Amino acid sequence: MSQHSNYFHAHHSPMGALASFTLGAQGEQGGLGLELGTPYPGNVHIGYQDDHGTIHQLPFFKGACSQSERYVQDAGANSSQEHILELSQRELKWSSDRFVAQNLELKILSPFFSIPEPEIANDGELKNACRPAVYAQLTVNNPSDHEWVGFFALQGEDLRWNAIQQPGQMVGVSAKDELGLASNSNNVSSFSHFSIASSLSGLGDTENFGLGPCAGLKFTIPAGQSKTIDIVLGVYKEGNATFNRKMQYYYTTHFANLNSVLIDAIENFDTALAVTRSKDLELEQSNLSPDQQFLVAHATHSYYGSTQWLVEAGKSVWVVNEGEYLMMNTLDLTVDMLFFELKLNPWTVKNTLEHFVNHYRYYDKIFSPEEPEQLLEGGVSFTHDMGVSNNWSSNGVSSYEISGLDRICFSHMTYEQLTNWVLCCGVYGHKTQDYNFLKRHQGVLKDCLQSLLNRDHPVADKRNGIMSFESSRTQGGGEITTYDSLDHSLGQARANIYLAGKAWASYLALEQIFTKLGDNISSVQAKNAALMSSELLSNSFDETLGFIPAVLENGNQSAIIPAVEALVYPYEMGLFDAVDEKGPYGAYVSTLKRHLQSVLDSGICLYPDGAWKLSSTADNSWASKIFLNQYVARQILGLDLSNNSQLADNAHVRWQQIGAAASACCDQFSSGKPIGSLYYPRCVSNILWMQE
Amino acid sequence: MSQHSNYFHAHHSPMGALASFTLGAQGEQGGLGLELGTPYPGNVHIGYQDDHGTIHQLPFFKGACSQSERYVQDAGANSSQEHILELSQRELKWSSDRFVAQNLELKILSPFFSIPEPEIANDGELKNACRPAVYAQLTVNNPSDHEWVGFFALQGEDLRWNAIQQPGQMVGVSAKDELGLASNSNNVSSFSHFSIASSLSGLGDTENFGLGPCAGLKFTIPAGQSKTIDIVLGVYKEGNATFNRKMQYYYTTHFANLNSVLIDAIENFDTALAVTRSKDLELEQSNLSPDQQFLVAHATHSYYGSTQWLVEAGKSVWVVNEGEYLMMNTLDLTVDMLFFELKLNPWTVKNTLEHFVNHYRYYDKIFSPEEPEQLLEGGVSFTHDMGVSNNWSSNGVSSYEISGLDRICFSHMTYEQLTNWVLCCGVYGHKTQDYNFLKRHQGVLKDCLQSLLNRDHPVADKRNGIMSFESSRTQGGGEITTYDSLDHSLGQARANIYLAGKAWASYLALEQIFTKLGDNISSVQAKNAALMSSELLSNSFDETLGFIPAVLENGNQSAIIPAVEALVYPYEMGLFDAVDEKGPYGAYVSTLKRHLQSVLDSGICLYPDGAWKLSSTADNSWASKIFLNQYVARQILGLDLSNNSQLADNAHVRWQQIGAAASACCDQFSSGKPIGSLYYPRCVSNILWMQE
Repeated sequence: MSQHSNYFHAHHSPMGALASFTLGAQGEQGGLGLELGTPYPGNVHIGYQDDHGTIHQLPFFKGACSQSERYVQDAGANSSQEHILELSQRELKWSSDRFVAQNLELKILSPFFSIPEPEIANDGELKNACRPAVYAQLTVNNPSDHEWVGFFALQGEDLRWNAIQQPGQMVGVSAKDELGLASNSNNVSSFSHFSIASSLSGLGDTENFGLGPCAGLKFTIPAGQSKTIDIVLGVYKEGNATFNRKMQYYYTTHFANLNSVLIDAIENFDTALAVTRSKDLELEQSNLSPDQQFLVAHATHSYYGSTQWLVEAGKSVWVVNEGEYLMMNTLDLTVDMLFFELKLNPWTVKNTLEHFVNHYRYYDKIFSPEEPEQLLEGGVSFTHDMGVSNNWSSNGVSSYEISGLDRICFSHMTYEQLTNWVLCCGVYGHKTQDYNFLKRHQGVLKDCLQSLLNRDHPVADKRNGIMSFESSRTQGGGEITTYDSLDHSLGQARANIYLAGKAWASYLALEQIFTKLGDNISSVQAKNAALMSSELLSNSFDETLGFIPAVLENGNQSAIIPAVEALVYPYEMGLFDAVDEKGPYGAYVSTLKRHLQSVLDSGICLYPDGAWKLSSTADNSWASKIFLNQYVARQILGLDLSNNSQLADNAHVRWQQIGAAASACCDQFSSGKPIGSLYYPRCVSNILWMQE
Repeated sequence: MSQHSNYFHAHHSPMGALASFTLGAQGEQGGLGLELGTPYPGNVHIGYQDDHGTIHQLPFFKGACSQSERYVQDAGANSSQEHILELSQRELKWSSDRFVAQNLELKILSPFFSIPEPEIANDGELKNACRPAVYAQLTVNNPSDHEWVGFFALQGEDLRWNAIQQPGQMVGVSAKDELGLASNSNNVSSFSHFSIASSLSGLGDTENFGLGPCAGLKFTIPAGQSKTIDIVLGVYKEGNATFNRKMQYYYTTHFANLNSVLIDAIENFDTALAVTRSKDLELEQSNLSPDQQFLVAHATHSYYGSTQWLVEAGKSVWVVNEGEYLMMNTLDLTVDMLFFELKLNPWTVKNTLEHFVNHYRYYDKIFSPEEPEQLLEGGVSFTHDMGVSNNWSSNGVSSYEISGLDRICFSHMTYEQLTNWVLCCGVYGHKTQDYNFLKRHQGVLKDCLQSLLNRDHPVADKRNGIMSFESSRTQGGGEITTYDSLDHSLGQARANIYLAGKAWASYLALEQIFTKLGDNISSVQAKNAALMSSELLSNSFDETLGFIPAVLENGNQSAIIPAVEALVYPYEMGLFDAVDEKGPYGAYVSTLKRHLQSVLDSGICLYPDGAWKLSSTADNSWASKIFLNQYVARQILGLDLSNNSQLADNAHVRWQQIGAAASACCDQFSSGKPIGSLYYPRCVSNILWMQE
């Protein structure tokens, strides 16, 4: 595998706790954080003090960039020497992360598995799934003939620590009754102090100094021996976790407090090891290349860091926070993470879709950009998100969208979110065969069909299959797509071929759903619309350009990869005919294949190193979307990417390991440097690769 | 009055909410913060936009240091011009703070008054006292012939806002259901946006943008008119506020949530105005000079910012947090703030003293520094503090003290805290005549006497009246005093004349208490010890030096002002004889008078500008202690300070207004620059001046 660096941050997170033990980048801040859009701004100290007094530690604290030894002097303490340990190996696997250095090995386990559906599963399964803990094993090998002292500690300026002393059960430290770490290994003791150096060099004899921001575990390694200690890291936030609508963390229904989380984690350490091993193995035994395996693993780690399993009046509420932005259940992320969630936790998809129906659905008017004053019947759509930073937006309102903007960032995404909700229903309905869900929302789904048709044109005769009308919510402005920070090639909604593809796929989804529901009139209506949009799109191929221009107006000449993106939905709905060059939409599919082949072959949608460039006219390329489109290209369109695949994967690994080293998995890259969507959950779209 | 600057931070705080609306420093961060040891790291935007689009605002945001106009350009918005308003007047009064600039006046009210004793007062009084709100009035005068827009807004990177819309009652904004502001004035609307400029210049038509970190109130000022709006700022933290021992804010027993605080504050706006006016007047009508009035007002504002009125199982728990350090009920601050608390809220003194008895009392062994291995019977004492950052320490342990240190910062303060608890009891017992309190703690008080005597010498015959033995808690090290960051002149406990003075005063307190309790044997024992210590101290005057050296060992030659500090306690206990040159301790009192006169006249305890320098050998002088010692010098020793007083007060005002401009009231200054104890409650020792 083309590992570019051993030093990059990764999330290590429980499922649904919106928490992460983030570490791995050299000389950067990290640690155990709750509800953050960034790595916790603290330091992690892991290492050992040898018999000469030298402190050897991994470079997981601010400023630890030098390999050289240095002397530190603490007030009143003996001087001691510090040595930064260099990683000889770093292995990020699907469910674990391993760090190897001189005389030291650290393994962090973030077990994940299918969360049973809360309404029907038993308590034991649910408790096991929601336990807000991650696990670590630290081994120090002492080849000397004197005793050494190992340590594992967290530091944070705002943290003041309590010792946890439960003899025979665990020792550890906790801060704010909210985060902590503990061990039940033999001969481990806990401490808190100003720093590792002040604790080890004995500024005072007090092990647990109340003012010390640095705390953790210490253990002795006898001469000539190796010692491994098990460590659990837990979080716990009691009471109301969200605002506007009060909800609690689901884990509070199974755990009374932080200490009960830590004890339970210790008792289940072996299970965590086994689950982790089996997940690691599952990815290793896939057909994926080492680069691809890394990208899937990294994405998965960051996905769980953004997940938040809440409870409102006894009912589970699933939230995926939007990485650094912390927007809640952003619908244009939901549709990309859909495949991952359907593989692991289909109930979370249902949960989110119904949450949108109940709280974040709205009905608007529409207008033609030529006649912005004349408002016509629009229809249903859904908000961009449900709130931000644990703050639920009011019903029918997102935190992101503002009115009065014309096709720039923060404008409304009415049309795209409408397709997103429909597409999620389509794939969810097919994969789960949850007929009751579709039946329950038949009315809304009919509204969706009408809304899609109206936004094409309120007058049936004037429709051409794609969006031409804008939402009144823009107040005379213009809608955008999820690609909000790109130029109009992907950013503007109207007449955009990326979004038109999603419209086509939405019609196919509705056709399938209404067929199942026995509403043949709607089913036929949807099919006709799908035919119309596919016809328009396949007729829009520009022979001179050699591709379909991104926006079908104003002479736009941008080439975009995501023209093909929407093929994934019918394919995942089992509509293989629809994506077959010989099927009913064959002309469209062939045109898309030609389009993609052309923009890749010509290099206008590639970076010089083979990385994918979503738009020929924007140096802003999104990893999550690249992964999705790679799947479409290989698996659905059957493109031969053998000349590019290895190069591209290699480059995309480099984006994450080098470019985004300090921010865990990131999405938006400009020439390999992350420029937005840091610390992001969306890249799990690459779970699709495991189906190839 | 010698106002040195109009620009300095001041706390504006409710009573007991550990919250502050801190503002006033130019170009510095500030805002409405909860549970912080620093000003909230945000920005405050107060001003107006004129009819040319220029935004005029007070310089209470980061970087607002230039008076010049500048153009700002926001994405998608029209360019607009910004102008920083210069303050023509700033008046910090006891309970209010007034800012005057071109066409604008802002007044902030932080009403304070005696909090009725929770166990006996009625609900209405208690609700009124604990309401976690501060109040503001903003007036904008529009001399133009076009409409202007005024604004009052808070900004914070971690804040996401909700609109409060209660028609007919209030409009406002809140964040995290935890802090907010509102108004019931006519024609006021609320907003949240990226910035003032983006809101005013209309980036989109959305008033309440969910992602905007900047939010507040807007109002129009008609042409040629002046408009004043009333604003309330509230905080609310629900659930458990402390760790290790769970307690809630007392206000949660009277208010259900933030909005009910805001509404109640609006309904009581007139009362707040009246209370503020009466407190301001009380200080104005005192005999204090304008400089002194400023120092009392500034200290009071910062005291309340550190107060925290909690409730545990229905019982009130009073905490004063230690400014920037956030240590809880630091006992060596309690004894300095005692006079303020006894004037306002005597029950808080009782509350804290009994809290120490129940949770933070301990019994130790002692040793002579010559024979550290031989441990002898010590006795009772109290911890330095009760915890830090809302984290209660375990019983009998402070957050601050660590073992194994020899007379350096973070060592134990066993002897001094023993005197502090006794002195608080003495003054509390005298001022309140709370006989039951003394009776209840008679046993502990007897333990205190024995403990003081033991620490002099366990063998009665070998006693000389002052501390000679160290606590076993130092594990062979040595104790320190509250002056922990000074050199040994004030920092070391043993043989220190500052602490010896407190020992003398403690014996006097115990004598008075045991007389009241009818325990004549103890009373005589205490009196004899007092005589012995006063004799030793008066005999220690060094004629060559011209003062008593700070530490009575190792040839120490430092001169310290706080040699006289402890005279305040017998004086405040009504023991006027004891501080009379003709009384039973006349020789000691005369010696102290000579000592102080000498160290001031010679200038070794003065800075060149007349400011007081607590120790001749340390450039680290503490405002709170200066104020206390000034009171002793003038009121008790009757020194003529007319040559110095005005200079000194002027310099001490400059320390706060210029030196500590960014940190509200501060305590530790090095040549006029704050070097520790920032944002501090202790300076209310100057309440004593109001008795002169």
